[in-house]
Amino acid sequence: MTPAEQQRRGPGRRPGAADTRGEILAAARSEFAARGYDASSVRGIARAAGVDPALVHHYFGTKEQVFVAAMALPFDPAERLPQVLAGDPSQLGERLVRLFLSIWAEPDFRAPMLGMLRSAFTGEQGATLLREFVGTALLGRVAQAIGPVDPLRVQTAAAQMVGVVILRHVVRLEPLASADEEEIIALVAPTVQRYLVG
Amino acid sequence: MTPAEQQRRGPGRRPGAADTRGEILAAARSEFAARGYDASSVRGIARAAGVDPALVHHYFGTKEQVFVAAMALPFDPAERLPQVLAGDPSQLGERLVRLFLSIWAEPDFRAPMLGMLRSAFTGEQGATLLREFVGTALLGRVAQAIGPVDPLRVQTAAAQMVGVVILRHVVRLEPLASADEEEIIALVAPTVQRYLVG
Repeated sequence: MTPAEQQRRGPGRRPGAADTRGEILAAARSEFAARGYDASSVRGIARAAGVDPALVHHYFGTKEQVFVAAMALPFDPAERLPQVLAGDPSQLGERLVRLFLSIWAEPDFRAPMLGMLRSAFTGEQGATLLREFVGTALLGRVAQAIGPVDPLRVQTAAAQMVGVVILRHVVRLEPLASADEEEIIALVAPTVQRYLVG
Repeated sequence: MTPAEQQRRGPGRRPGAADTRGEILAAARSEFAARGYDASSVRGIARAAGVDPALVHHYFGTKEQVFVAAMALPFDPAERLPQVLAGDPSQLGERLVRLFLSIWAEPDFRAPMLGMLRSAFTGEQGATLLREFVGTALLGRVAQAIGPVDPLRVQTAAAQMVGVVILRHVVRLEPLASADEEEIIALVAPTVQRYLVG
């Protein structure tokens, strides 16, 4: 997406670039998690990474592109979802809930996702970004894999999983916050299965 | 709701009562924010407002009612939930989902609830307040009404409804955002029913 970045990906890329990229992304994840999307800035991310803002623009482009790059690292839906969507349809609900809970258990994934959700609460930009990400990268892919299914059913299944991680990781309601993943899967998987496969 | 308050709303209300109410509410907001729901008390709120605890009871009633007033919630769980929890247990899921969707459809309710949820995303204080309020005023009441039920099942049911309103009203994912309430109820009520009643 970034012309500057594409140019830079030539043989002339300087040594150590991968580390700088990684440091910027780590700083970006912290910033988005701490401040949400709207209040974060390329300048603030650069400051947190200890680099010049021009370098952030150089590698990623806009704040949104930094955000997407930071999001893509811990969980690439293009990579993880197809494995889960393939396989025995009668176990689809369980595989989805298991994947969902396990990625939300990773702080590296949770922090940016919570930042994205928080920004959805504070501004239209965040809501748009989240809507597009969820709609395209996640739900669109599910619908594509399992065949014709009412999008409302896919979203209601997603709502069940989103609600669980919000009460578990944001509101931290007990016993849900400390419950064993298997216990939650046993409760929630049949629900997701019913919505998606019937 | 408060008989004492209703009596008080007569012609004999003393001058300056509105200010006293306002001062009590301001004190209540500070107390709830500083201590959380469970550790706050009518006595502590009265002390912070510089009035007698009897006056707090007189204007608002219980701690829960002070909270509902302080948070400007146009939904008093003590009033609306018991109606829904009574009645045919085989329709409980439907009644709960219908109530939940209808109160979230009211902007006057949605605004303070989203504020509370947003604050849960931005700081431990907000999360604590929401956790305790949801736990005590809402889920505790559900568990009390329907008899012995695994709290995890009540919370998973709540998670389904919370997820729906977040995707519907915050992320505004289509078609969920514009879906007819009855269509959502038809999908979600059996899930809530299954969690709560089996």
